[in-house]
Amino acid sequence: MSDPARSGFVSLVSAGPGDPELLTVRAAKRLAQADVVLFDDLASGPLLDLARPEARRIPVGKRAGRPSARQDDVNACIIAEAQAGHRVVRLKSGDAGIFGRLEEELDALAAAGVGWEIVPGVPSACAAAAAADMPLTRRLTARRLQFVTGADVTGKLPADLNWAALADAYALTVVFMGQRTFPVLAEGLIAHGLPPDTPAMLAAEVSKPGQNLTRTTVAELAGMLAGTAPETPALILYGALAPARNR
Amino acid sequence: MSDPARSGFVSLVSAGPGDPELLTVRAAKRLAQADVVLFDDLASGPLLDLARPEARRIPVGKRAGRPSARQDDVNACIIAEAQAGHRVVRLKSGDAGIFGRLEEELDALAAAGVGWEIVPGVPSACAAAAAADMPLTRRLTARRLQFVTGADVTGKLPADLNWAALADAYALTVVFMGQRTFPVLAEGLIAHGLPPDTPAMLAAEVSKPGQNLTRTTVAELAGMLAGTAPETPALILYGALAPARNR
Repeated sequence: MSDPARSGFVSLVSAGPGDPELLTVRAAKRLAQADVVLFDDLASGPLLDLARPEARRIPVGKRAGRPSARQDDVNACIIAEAQAGHRVVRLKSGDAGIFGRLEEELDALAAAGVGWEIVPGVPSACAAAAAADMPLTRRLTARRLQFVTGADVTGKLPADLNWAALADAYALTVVFMGQRTFPVLAEGLIAHGLPPDTPAMLAAEVSKPGQNLTRTTVAELAGMLAGTAPETPALILYGALAPARNR
Repeated sequence: MSDPARSGFVSLVSAGPGDPELLTVRAAKRLAQADVVLFDDLASGPLLDLARPEARRIPVGKRAGRPSARQDDVNACIIAEAQAGHRVVRLKSGDAGIFGRLEEELDALAAAGVGWEIVPGVPSACAAAAAADMPLTRRLTARRLQFVTGADVTGKLPADLNWAALADAYALTVVFMGQRTFPVLAEGLIAHGLPPDTPAMLAAEVSKPGQNLTRTTVAELAGMLAGTAPETPALILYGALAPARNR
């Protein structure tokens, strides 16, 4: 155990989707106060300009399909910086509590006796819907909103999916890390009764300069993604999507 | 149709859970620029201090179980203020796109030819999890996160629930507006196979001075809430909750 009096402090900060204006006020404050910022590929760019020039910026990028820092190494780095007495910001894309391996980092901090706080943030799915001029829930047709992951630790579609939950046209489903596995997921969804023409949206680079929102259907999106190895991370939304608006 | 040149502009702004530091930077800017702020009961308090002293603050409170402004009246008020040339902020609690009747307001704005933007925000569920030192998803045991409503427009439990989706101990479920109906919901969940001792948390006044996070189980929470008529809005989380930490 470290001596708490000598330890720094770790802020596990949600970066939101990427636009600095979609940071929370607290996240912006923590960045401005940080001695060290550990960031993922998805939580970088102009967000890092909010830290002081003399703050150290350490990439610990994890992006599907690319080599990246091991979680154990990330944990060790966070703890070493805190135990050196620094104010550490661990910047995590979207909301830190959703598919961000937050629990592994909390376990490591607790085991090391390092103090922390969690700063919640704007999930990228919320920003995608806002950019598409639509709500995530609809009063009569989308009373359930669910977030799932399209990839387990090996990068494959998880084996133990709840198909009754997923193949539901009266929910809105957001798939994280799902581009590579979506053709297989879509096949299962359709086999379990989801209409192939269920509305879908591919949301890439949400809130960033390269933002691209493509409205399509579940079957068409599966065809688009089959055999591709997308470089750009994107969310997939499908189900009871509100229609596009002319404005 | 109004003359767009004479119209103001409506920012549909997510207020987050209530703590002003959990507003986004953009939301804080929009409040500071507003001529008129239309707010719900849940999106009020110190947030309104961020508007200019001369900005008009108009309550359009909607809280379960109390008389409140009709949605048509809210829509008419937003449009009248915009058509008078004002910068209007419609402040909505949590993320505006999640169970906030956003679509009705968008429909009304589009029909009136009034310009708008949607500013996404921090869902209260994300802030509740952060305050409880836990993630919303867990790598092996909670790969699905779902948000549902415990009340339809009449205040009753919706009739057409997907029980296979809801009675799933390997998901984390967040119930909005669910305190009154939770005893009935819990009975159905248990009948559909959810263990009665599944972890649950009641999260009241998240991020506000009166914040109260109560860890319990599905069956115990149903017992606690039976026959009560809670005044304080709260979220209910159940399922694969990460355990409490000593810190």
